[in-house]
Amino acid sequence: MKVSIERSALLKAMSRAQSVVERRNTIPILANVLIEAEGDGLSFRATDLDIEVLDRAPAMVLKAGATTVGAHTLHEIVRKLPDGAMVELESDDAAGRLAVRAGRSSFSLATLPREDFPVMANAEYECNFACDTPVLRRLFDKAKFAMSVEETRYYLNGVYMHAADGLDGRALRCVATDGHRLARIDAPLPQGADNLPGVIVPRKTVGEMRKLLDDDDVQIAVSVSETKIRFATPEVTLTSKVIDGTFPDYSRVIPTGNTKRLEVDATEFSKAVDRVATVSSERSRAVKLSLDEDRLVLSVNAPDSGAAEEELAVAYGDEPLEIGFNAKYLQEIADQVDRENAVFLFNASGDPTLMREGDDETAVYVVMPMRV
Amino acid sequence: MKVSIERSALLKAMSRAQSVVERRNTIPILANVLIEAEGDGLSFRATDLDIEVLDRAPAMVLKAGATTVGAHTLHEIVRKLPDGAMVELESDDAAGRLAVRAGRSSFSLATLPREDFPVMANAEYECNFACDTPVLRRLFDKAKFAMSVEETRYYLNGVYMHAADGLDGRALRCVATDGHRLARIDAPLPQGADNLPGVIVPRKTVGEMRKLLDDDDVQIAVSVSETKIRFATPEVTLTSKVIDGTFPDYSRVIPTGNTKRLEVDATEFSKAVDRVATVSSERSRAVKLSLDEDRLVLSVNAPDSGAAEEELAVAYGDEPLEIGFNAKYLQEIADQVDRENAVFLFNASGDPTLMREGDDETAVYVVMPMRV
Repeated sequence: MKVSIERSALLKAMSRAQSVVERRNTIPILANVLIEAEGDGLSFRATDLDIEVLDRAPAMVLKAGATTVGAHTLHEIVRKLPDGAMVELESDDAAGRLAVRAGRSSFSLATLPREDFPVMANAEYECNFACDTPVLRRLFDKAKFAMSVEETRYYLNGVYMHAADGLDGRALRCVATDGHRLARIDAPLPQGADNLPGVIVPRKTVGEMRKLLDDDDVQIAVSVSETKIRFATPEVTLTSKVIDGTFPDYSRVIPTGNTKRLEVDATEFSKAVDRVATVSSERSRAVKLSLDEDRLVLSVNAPDSGAAEEELAVAYGDEPLEIGFNAKYLQEIADQVDRENAVFLFNASGDPTLMREGDDETAVYVVMPMRV
Repeated sequence: MKVSIERSALLKAMSRAQSVVERRNTIPILANVLIEAEGDGLSFRATDLDIEVLDRAPAMVLKAGATTVGAHTLHEIVRKLPDGAMVELESDDAAGRLAVRAGRSSFSLATLPREDFPVMANAEYECNFACDTPVLRRLFDKAKFAMSVEETRYYLNGVYMHAADGLDGRALRCVATDGHRLARIDAPLPQGADNLPGVIVPRKTVGEMRKLLDDDDVQIAVSVSETKIRFATPEVTLTSKVIDGTFPDYSRVIPTGNTKRLEVDATEFSKAVDRVATVSSERSRAVKLSLDEDRLVLSVNAPDSGAAEEELAVAYGDEPLEIGFNAKYLQEIADQVDRENAVFLFNASGDPTLMREGDDETAVYVVMPMRV
């Protein structure tokens, strides 16, 4: 293999590839990126055996071929090269070396044979559809904060994507929950997604996939099988196993009979929660909401460090209510609101509370109360 | 005590105070800041028993008095209050509480009696002088990277400040070394500093003191005794114990007979060292410099990961030389150069190497070579 490639194109591709590669690897080949030169471009493939990313970049291929080399080392080198440099990559398979040359710098990196690189088996995807970038970004961005990090409940360590009956017909729906709070986000079901199997997209995949979603004008091709999901742009293909488990029946925890309606400016609310929580003990972080006629008092009482109270002007017309929440959970759901006010629907102090943006039912959040 | 103070003034004072306070404290009072209200201002005092910071801020004192309260908590609260807010502080000594009020927020923080707060004993300073901010900043900024972090050589865990005979008469001199590299920075000795005792300013004090040095127009009043050093601006007084130990005779390690002169653009050099060091093993980070007529080749050879080489056009007219260094040490001294080129003076491969900026002898660096 011998190729010449612009430093910025190489850096972009390598940034994405190395981010899938774990820092510590017991299997040496998993630390490497598979570089393949053919036609008028290079492809870069990296994997952790659960996720595979395949990146393409234009390059001048002087001699086709392939090799594998340490992903983090190559990424570091390219990052440190001066902007605008042309980089030459030349593999010497007999010596097991890849030469990297740019200007007056030259590097010789240890390689491993391309045959050793574990390429993910091709799956039969039963469902294929295209999705606008902003739609997919909203679905995952608004749901992901609620993913669990508890290893024991592995089936909650991701975002559950499936087709569901939404308010305005069939919906592409993302749900995440850790048992304390839940997010349920809907978008109109794209053409071709009718037979979408429900899949749990793992946390790491959600993070890697998010990097493909910065360009609003690109359509994302999504392919789903019972065991795998694939997101593809013209440049990048990200394939991931899905979590082998059953996502719990979340519909049971979304309250439908909550009628006590509080409307509040989400930013003001989030800041006020943050302020009063300053004095809370690190473990509980409990904030009490005391509601009365158009008046919300947030308060924290921590015997050791002190007490805090803040009043907010709100819209509330129901009977007085006192209810407690984890401050972090309240802030995180309030931070999802980007238009309109936050609307909370309460039932009683011990019951789950619902939140949404204004009257938009396509993004619904549930948070469990705590005793205060 | 009852006072009213502008949020930004309170934040500035509390930022400096809390930064001296350790995050974990076995002695509860050390987590607190002592707030004293008198005349037309507030003073804030924080200590870790080695360093004490005393900060003043203008305030409307409605009732004089004093109390102590958790420094990090108060700082966090003030930080989260909206910009431009007026903050009211009112202590209730009987209840052991400090009320913090701003707009519709109110906090009640646990206090400890002012009598419990350990105020640092006043020292007799035998040497008092004033120093321009840029001068003091240069002395410490250029020396501090060479401080040791090894606990066992505690007398190297700081910057040694003393009066010395410089090239152009008496000098105020800062020296730091960790045994692998050394920095010696001189400035003209300020009036009144003739009888300056040599003191080792501890690492944490160097960091805290640096925060007083951002305003070029302020003069710093420096007071030194055998056991303490004090830096004062009109707003802030920082008092610190100095390290109780003897700084080694550094003059013996500064080579005087090095004649092989290399002149190189410091930025280019530092970047090139960074690039070739990418392939070095994390432990050794050894870079080899091969010098020949106006030509410098930097190279790294790491059996596991690979090799790297980069050539630089330099000014060098002596006999060929090969010498190895720790890449990090080379970069750190090259990064001190802010005007002119870096001038290296070598002797032989096993001998300490000297570096300075152009022909400026008021900032001299020594770095020990390593076998490559």
